[in-house]
Amino acid sequence: MSALTLVQEQKCFGGRQVRYKHNSAVLNCEMQFSVFLPPQAAEHKVPALYWLSGLTCSDENFSVKAGAQRVAAELGIALIIPDTSPRGDGVADDPAYDLGQGAGFYVNATQAPWTQHYQMYDYILTELPTLLEAQLPLSDQRAISGHSMGGHGALVLALRNPQRFTSVSAFAPIANPLNCPWGQKAFTAYLGDDRTAWEEYDASLLLAQYRGDLPMLVDQGDADNFLAEQLKPQALYTAGMQVKANLLLRMQPGYDHSYYFIASFIEEHLRFHAGYLQD
Amino acid sequence: MSALTLVQEQKCFGGRQVRYKHNSAVLNCEMQFSVFLPPQAAEHKVPALYWLSGLTCSDENFSVKAGAQRVAAELGIALIIPDTSPRGDGVADDPAYDLGQGAGFYVNATQAPWTQHYQMYDYILTELPTLLEAQLPLSDQRAISGHSMGGHGALVLALRNPQRFTSVSAFAPIANPLNCPWGQKAFTAYLGDDRTAWEEYDASLLLAQYRGDLPMLVDQGDADNFLAEQLKPQALYTAGMQVKANLLLRMQPGYDHSYYFIASFIEEHLRFHAGYLQD
Repeated sequence: MSALTLVQEQKCFGGRQVRYKHNSAVLNCEMQFSVFLPPQAAEHKVPALYWLSGLTCSDENFSVKAGAQRVAAELGIALIIPDTSPRGDGVADDPAYDLGQGAGFYVNATQAPWTQHYQMYDYILTELPTLLEAQLPLSDQRAISGHSMGGHGALVLALRNPQRFTSVSAFAPIANPLNCPWGQKAFTAYLGDDRTAWEEYDASLLLAQYRGDLPMLVDQGDADNFLAEQLKPQALYTAGMQVKANLLLRMQPGYDHSYYFIASFIEEHLRFHAGYLQD
Repeated sequence: MSALTLVQEQKCFGGRQVRYKHNSAVLNCEMQFSVFLPPQAAEHKVPALYWLSGLTCSDENFSVKAGAQRVAAELGIALIIPDTSPRGDGVADDPAYDLGQGAGFYVNATQAPWTQHYQMYDYILTELPTLLEAQLPLSDQRAISGHSMGGHGALVLALRNPQRFTSVSAFAPIANPLNCPWGQKAFTAYLGDDRTAWEEYDASLLLAQYRGDLPMLVDQGDADNFLAEQLKPQALYTAGMQVKANLLLRMQPGYDHSYYFIASFIEEHLRFHAGYLQD
């Protein structure tokens, strides 16, 4: 197991906002991520919320902009904030913002030139939790959330692995990537032309097949510029209705796609997850 | 009076996070600033907290990083977030981060080449409030706060004009600029070599002369890298003790100079100001 190297540590709401780097065996490169450890982590192991960020983001955006540490400190929940793709000079990339570095889409790539590094699904699902639960004061209680591309990632990871997560939430997720330009472009590149391979990474299709009671909370701003073309929450809603999923999907009037939207509702998401995470 | 041009507007905690630009007569250039209008501003005029940012910042840093909108929305207080200097191609500048654009130090410059634009003291004290109270749903109740260079600015503006502000607070202010490298460099450039001209812009010297009961709250992290050389809160504390000022200065163990520190305590500052601002 790779060691964690501390890059930066800052006190925040009585807890510790920490940035680490490590060599990822799954991604085959050095990765950075951020963790917020609440004050309770100095005394005992705490549960964790994994936060998956959106296109172009690193581990910094949510750390700096969401204001999540206040409630996480109150509730005793760690925040785990990974990067959104493999990184580095030797890692395949694309000049567009929606493919390559910063745009890993939380899939395991099967197509050249992406296969060697773009295995974000396995990294988030297994390598990172195994590493963190061995080396930080974390219990094995995990929730997961994310924004846009990261909301897609959170829903897909949770619906395919409901035993790994107590609850899932999302802000403005790419809810039906098979039917939107962002998803079609990324999945063609990472997974190839065979659309059956894409179905394992589409939250709406996965939810239509899901039989279980995983708690799900989704917020979507109705002034979000990406709503109609890219996000398509109605597909998720329809699937959830069909299978009587434990899904609350809320349209939030007037909110856009930005971190001002996330900041406005992150407290409700943290309290939602706290209702299922055990100490 | 110049018109306000709306640059961007985003919903946040039920209120409006807005960026405006306008032509400043005092600064002799176009300026941008941000305002958070709480939900209550849709119904009636609300009081305002002016926030002055630190070196290198624009109106964006506090807007995005401090998490202040949540409590401002609850309390019904507008946040006014100016830029830290005049800006633009025609505005004098310096390659260093601590002089010129991004480093106006909230003084009225008297020395070439700065005089034409660097009049931030008058801009914050008079031009901006006059403009905003005429064109936005703001009452004439004002509080003021800031960080580092902006903490210096807030204390100086309030101590010289206590009738204009109900209360003042600061995070890690440059509390005694006459005796630190940042202050000496900036004041030499903007105000010249005669140190008597500097004394009007030193919070510790002003407090030692102040006779009044203006409520003052100052937080300072004891893990702040700039504490000993640049910030010197002990000078402010000593002056406050001498004149029995209404000053609470708190050393916060473990906190640094960053926005994680500000985010951790901004709620307490807003509630402090709310105790003095009238609706």
